[in-house]
Amino acid sequence: MTVSYNHQVATSKPYLILKLLARWKGSVWKAVSLELGIWIIAYYTIFCIYRFWMGDYSKKKFEDFIRFFQGSMSYIPLDFMLSFFVTIVVNRWSTIFQNLGMIDNIALFASNYIKGNDERGRNLRRNVVRYCCLSQAMVFRDLNMQVRRRFPTFEALVAAGFMMEHELQMFHDVQNRYAKYWVPLNWSLTLINNAKKEGRVDSDVNEFAIAQEIRHFRTNLSTVWQHDWISIPILYPQLVFTATHIYFLLALFARQFIVTADQKPGEVDIHFPLMTVFQFIFYVGWMKVAMALLNPMGEDDDDYDCNFLLDRNLTLSLGCQDCHRDPPEMKPDAFWE
Amino acid sequence: MTVSYNHQVATSKPYLILKLLARWKGSVWKAVSLELGIWIIAYYTIFCIYRFWMGDYSKKKFEDFIRFFQGSMSYIPLDFMLSFFVTIVVNRWSTIFQNLGMIDNIALFASNYIKGNDERGRNLRRNVVRYCCLSQAMVFRDLNMQVRRRFPTFEALVAAGFMMEHELQMFHDVQNRYAKYWVPLNWSLTLINNAKKEGRVDSDVNEFAIAQEIRHFRTNLSTVWQHDWISIPILYPQLVFTATHIYFLLALFARQFIVTADQKPGEVDIHFPLMTVFQFIFYVGWMKVAMALLNPMGEDDDDYDCNFLLDRNLTLSLGCQDCHRDPPEMKPDAFWE
Amino acid sequence: MTVSYNHQVATSKPYLILKLLARWKGSVWKAVSLELGIWIIAYYTIFCIYRFWMGDYSKKKFEDFIRFFQGSMSYIPLDFMLSFFVTIVVNRWSTIFQNLGMIDNIALFASNYIKGNDERGRNLRRNVVRYCCLSQAMVFRDLNMQVRRRFPTFEALVAAGFMMEHELQMFHDVQNRYAKYWVPLNWSLTLINNAKKEGRVDSDVNEFAIAQEIRHFRTNLSTVWQHDWISIPILYPQLVFTATHIYFLLALFARQFIVTADQKPGEVDIHFPLMTVFQFIFYVGWMKVAMALLNPMGEDDDDYDCNFLLDRNLTLSLGCQDCHRDPPEMKPDAFWE
Amino acid sequence: MTVSYNHQVATSKPYLILKLLARWKGSVWKAVSLELGIWIIAYYTIFCIYRFWMGDYSKKKFEDFIRFFQGSMSYIPLDFMLSFFVTIVVNRWSTIFQNLGMIDNIALFASNYIKGNDERGRNLRRNVVRYCCLSQAMVFRDLNMQVRRRFPTFEALVAAGFMMEHELQMFHDVQNRYAKYWVPLNWSLTLINNAKKEGRVDSDVNEFAIAQEIRHFRTNLSTVWQHDWISIPILYPQLVFTATHIYFLLALFARQFIVTADQKPGEVDIHFPLMTVFQFIFYVGWMKVAMALLNPMGEDDDDYDCNFLLDRNLTLSLGCQDCHRDPPEMKPDAFWE
Amino acid sequence: MTVSYNHQVATSKPYLILKLLARWKGSVWKAVSLELGIWIIAYYTIFCIYRFWMGDYSKKKFEDFIRFFQGSMSYIPLDFMLSFFVTIVVNRWSTIFQNLGMIDNIALFASNYIKGNDERGRNLRRNVVRYCCLSQAMVFRDLNMQVRRRFPTFEALVAAGFMMEHELQMFHDVQNRYAKYWVPLNWSLTLINNAKKEGRVDSDVNEFAIAQEIRHFRTNLSTVWQHDWISIPILYPQLVFTATHIYFLLALFARQFIVTADQKPGEVDIHFPLMTVFQFIFYVGWMKVAMALLNPMGEDDDDYDCNFLLDRNLTLSLGCQDCHRDPPEMKPDAFWE
Repeated sequence: MTVSYNHQVATSKPYLILKLLARWKGSVWKAVSLELGIWIIAYYTIFCIYRFWMGDYSKKKFEDFIRFFQGSMSYIPLDFMLSFFVTIVVNRWSTIFQNLGMIDNIALFASNYIKGNDERGRNLRRNVVRYCCLSQAMVFRDLNMQVRRRFPTFEALVAAGFMMEHELQMFHDVQNRYAKYWVPLNWSLTLINNAKKEGRVDSDVNEFAIAQEIRHFRTNLSTVWQHDWISIPILYPQLVFTATHIYFLLALFARQFIVTADQKPGEVDIHFPLMTVFQFIFYVGWMKVAMALLNPMGEDDDDYDCNFLLDRNLTLSLGCQDCHRDPPEMKPDAFWE
Repeated sequence: MTVSYNHQVATSKPYLILKLLARWKGSVWKAVSLELGIWIIAYYTIFCIYRFWMGDYSKKKFEDFIRFFQGSMSYIPLDFMLSFFVTIVVNRWSTIFQNLGMIDNIALFASNYIKGNDERGRNLRRNVVRYCCLSQAMVFRDLNMQVRRRFPTFEALVAAGFMMEHELQMFHDVQNRYAKYWVPLNWSLTLINNAKKEGRVDSDVNEFAIAQEIRHFRTNLSTVWQHDWISIPILYPQLVFTATHIYFLLALFARQFIVTADQKPGEVDIHFPLMTVFQFIFYVGWMKVAMALLNPMGEDDDDYDCNFLLDRNLTLSLGCQDCHRDPPEMKPDAFWE
Repeated sequence: MTVSYNHQVATSKPYLILKLLARWKGSVWKAVSLELGIWIIAYYTIFCIYRFWMGDYSKKKFEDFIRFFQGSMSYIPLDFMLSFFVTIVVNRWSTIFQNLGMIDNIALFASNYIKGNDERGRNLRRNVVRYCCLSQAMVFRDLNMQVRRRFPTFEALVAAGFMMEHELQMFHDVQNRYAKYWVPLNWSLTLINNAKKEGRVDSDVNEFAIAQEIRHFRTNLSTVWQHDWISIPILYPQLVFTATHIYFLLALFARQFIVTADQKPGEVDIHFPLMTVFQFIFYVGWMKVAMALLNPMGEDDDDYDCNFLLDRNLTLSLGCQDCHRDPPEMKPDAFWE
Repeated sequence: MTVSYNHQVATSKPYLILKLLARWKGSVWKAVSLELGIWIIAYYTIFCIYRFWMGDYSKKKFEDFIRFFQGSMSYIPLDFMLSFFVTIVVNRWSTIFQNLGMIDNIALFASNYIKGNDERGRNLRRNVVRYCCLSQAMVFRDLNMQVRRRFPTFEALVAAGFMMEHELQMFHDVQNRYAKYWVPLNWSLTLINNAKKEGRVDSDVNEFAIAQEIRHFRTNLSTVWQHDWISIPILYPQLVFTATHIYFLLALFARQFIVTADQKPGEVDIHFPLMTVFQFIFYVGWMKVAMALLNPMGEDDDDYDCNFLLDRNLTLSLGCQDCHRDPPEMKPDAFWE
Repeated sequence: MTVSYNHQVATSKPYLILKLLARWKGSVWKAVSLELGIWIIAYYTIFCIYRFWMGDYSKKKFEDFIRFFQGSMSYIPLDFMLSFFVTIVVNRWSTIFQNLGMIDNIALFASNYIKGNDERGRNLRRNVVRYCCLSQAMVFRDLNMQVRRRFPTFEALVAAGFMMEHELQMFHDVQNRYAKYWVPLNWSLTLINNAKKEGRVDSDVNEFAIAQEIRHFRTNLSTVWQHDWISIPILYPQLVFTATHIYFLLALFARQFIVTADQKPGEVDIHFPLMTVFQFIFYVGWMKVAMALLNPMGEDDDDYDCNFLLDRNLTLSLGCQDCHRDPPEMKPDAFWE
């Protein structure tokens, strides 16, 4: 479920920022807490071994290593990698999100262009939009874990009212080696075509208008599916995630305070790697942004709430079909004169 | 209300820049003044404690901390974080702004394609466009605080002339668990459909043309709504805002002048952290750009002026419906020969 | 007027670059010359005061300041700010430029689909396209200073042949609180509609085709207008311009050569801040890119030549209406066999 | 074949990252292993020559070189070059991938708008979609090595069922100097046109709807082909790849540990260039991202699986033509009341 | 002519990279060779003057200058300028390339929708597409030097078969102050319109379909023309190119080895500025990418091959008109059962 915080940034007042930072769900704190905990434990383990357990000679040797790491951690271009990778991932995320598929246009056009207040008319309208919702539910089932968990089988779709028993039967009868998301859309188009033949749709152009909306909807679903099919090539995230992990693995050593050397000004033994902890939060948090958005169909706090969208689309589109015959009575409006 | 300054950058003359910088409303000065004030007070509090209250030993210890912070403030990748985050936020802001929804196309097509100078014809045209404005007002009410404040209830929409009493009644009669922005658009489409049946719209294609404009308008509104529904995942702004705040929290200490040490050349005790104040203005100001644009539907000086847009759309679209029957008399133009 | 240099970069030969760099109009040299002059005068004023007027004690104090500024000028993230801001401004500039509005599609469709070689037919075609040009002229008048200067009043539009006297009269009769750019477009659409009714347009679909082009044209104009209405929030350019100015204000001091200290190798007193002058040219020139593009409707050398576009659109579209009845005689072409 | 890892990033749990990093196919490990091996061998060759074979004088001279390289490796702007180049390549890759061409819309429209359950009707529908798949197969043959290997000749296309013997004959009869991808699409359009004339397509608008889908499909293929025709100008990848190679060629020397000098703190002879190996993995891995995406039609692990797409399109589109006459029986749905 | 190298990056094998780097045509080597030669000559001229001709005092003074330049070359933000500028130029380049204009859609629709196997029908079809090609040739003549050289006069277009004598006559008869690219397109549209009237085009919608393709084609040409009309404001390339040149002008001095000073470790007199040569190749090569793409209509090795496109469009579109009446005989396909 996406985490909403818009009302907290309605104005850029300082105290509103504090409220924003204090959120836990979907927050950077939640995202990095586990890793940070592990890192701190590892840090203090090395800390103790180095200070209390090593002999003088080992200490010397160990300190050489610390210095070696300190001098070459800048070899890892973490800034560039993270910033550009995150931008690419955000663009991808935002393409997907703009193609999630809102049923509204289909619903409005079906409601207005398919005539008839009898049962058959109502059935036609309701089925046209329901089949579109069904197709979306089928696609989302295969991409989104939360939807999958809600609808582990097609029977669950029947139970939820997206489908009916005899439709499921027909669906299973269609033989095709590949995903059959198109079957319900085919039904939709056929129904519209039949409605046209029965004279329930006035004109070719109106049939065209509804069919085009279904086409847009299908293209949206297809875009989402394609983005699931073709991920960002695995070596790019591997590269970025490895770089981040190696960096902080080295930091376990490089940020140990060297106890046996002469202290130079600016070197203070504060027993806690405060600045490295900050650095950890910022870089690992940044990496987590990329991870959270890499598969927006996943189960992170901030992933798309596909179940909400499915329910909304079904309810709205069905509800929309029943109130189409009755625009309000026309009276002169407030600015008539 | 967006702050306009285009005429001040019509040419890139130096003195025009000065006028641009001297603006207060929506300015970076206004945005950072409060935070900067707090920061300076905190700075001088620490300044006084450190210089006048601490003993020699505490001073030594404290200076160790100062040096520690000085050495590691570069761990925070503020440049990269702010520049990339701001770019992402600006892109989002500019997508929203290109989808705010201008009524003009609907108004022009309705005015030309729905015929009839009698009351019913006029009523049809005016209602078709008014319902579109009404739908936009309903969406903006839920997203924009200023519009919300203006129209706290649907009754306020009635009072402002966007809606009529009996329409509100009908609107409430529609049962749906989700936002009912589509209801007025449905009325619009039905009216056009009725007009077609009555012969007031000449052809299928003209009906199609108006319906497509309504479709575009609705898709715009939907895009704006979707961008409100799905924010940039909260951990990204948290990350960037935290980094900026931590940086200047540390700067409170790191930028204290060390009084007990030997002065190296280039170290001057000027009693005022001039450069850090500049740095504060630039980085916090940059962060404020991101904050101001993160929710462009908010109440910052530079957020979209949605009330203006609503009024413009309603006035323009209604006014447009009354002057459609009378193109100017045709005479040979100035270049006729 | 945009400055064209394409033929000078047709190949990437070195001497062509020199010709490119030698251009004055719209050039970086012209853009920074004034500021650079002021800066150099200021520099030598401080230079003289410091070297010839100050006593030894003041010199010492002053040099402390120089060193202080030298050490902290890197606090200003000029590179990041300028590069990202310029990129955002260039994107905006290029969106506007792709929506300036070319009349050609309307002209071609009107010329072909509105039939009749009699005076009325010719009048219909010419008026349809002229009204579109008129609408564009009205929008550009409000956005572009050069167009405004050319057409300070609507009467000037009449004088230039964009409008006729009786049309202006009708235009003034339309009462609307907001800009009335849509009025001429409304006339255009009505004329097409009338032509359809008179049988001068063959079919619904052809009427639709012309109307859609007018719609595209209007949407382009609307996009340009929207980009003028909603500027990039003022605090972003303020931030970037301030940063650049502060930087070079500090450089006035920081780049003075310290005369009393021992010279370190690499420190040479060359009496002229050569490198800082280069730096000034590059950074201030970069800032000028942003300023020149921030309002491309302004009066900089490189701003869009809207008057040219208006004249071209009017001439081309009118001329296009007279030669439509006569495609060349059909003969077998060169590759017939 | 693209490597899928979406389910491993469904949540951003730490252990899921480990599974992601452990992938071999398409991984950064696989991509850099060979180069890394060669580099390490070269490193130790120089290592041995320098330490065990050189005399004292040569060592001195050699160490001068090492120091020379150490001091100037930062002249190569690897960070900037790689990050910007990779971003450009990723954008290109993602444009291509969004234009690969899904047959679904054509299949659905053909299935619904071309009537007739007799053999001719079925044949018409099946041929219309098959010819589109055939055109795609022809384009992909020329761009993609895997498809080329599968279909080395047109006869292979016949064998695979994309084409029939007599169609191949006709195809060869068409004389044209340029690629003849358009021939099957031409057949498709003619079939639809014939179907319209026979009354198997109901209306002009329906014919238009199918033709538009074929147009979209062809435009997609054309876009893919254009991206193959016009590559990113060769000097850009040359530049970036050369920079990366030169950098690590120099690193062979610059990262040798200087044995004869006095050891400064932080310089430890650890006999293995650990940090440089990390750096190698990150930079060369990054370069590999660019290389893998530069020609997404190639044979890397992560290149598009065009054979899969061809099979899917053919199977799905043919299968779709047979089930179009029979929407499920209409019954009241679950939310009827 | 664009340089193709796609098959060399089909896989990211190391030896394929070598083949890529070994290309000369359009390569970075060719691009920078001349400048590099001049730079090296200049370097050694200064080198000789400094080492063999200067006296001790001049040497001292000169070395001061060397050190002065060494210390301040970082003032020039070459990395940021080049990387962002190149990205902007690449985006522009890729917009132009996606709008070059492929005739295929027009050819397919004209071939299918304009009926008649008699001479007039064939003539109609061939002329409709030829006029579109002619319009493209006219636009390209004004933008592209290679096309200009091939068609220095309109007579050359006649000779090449794009136009016929009597058409040229008619073209010259059209009076218009501005470029007359639209004239052939006007003829095309008129021919289609006539064909409709003669009954050779079946329906309004089919006429609309062809006209829309011509509209798309014209809009593409218009986009290309607009990008030629409005260049990136000249001060931006001036800035970037100046910065690069100044940088390496300074490098002529700054990278001279200081012979009279005490050698510090890491300073080796290798008599050849190896690293600076690398740096020269990378930065100047990067600048050359920008220059080569800034005017993709020019004559660089990698500029668009417009003559190829013109020939392809003409040949393909004419060839396409003759084979439209004969889809292959329909037989059950391989998957019939």
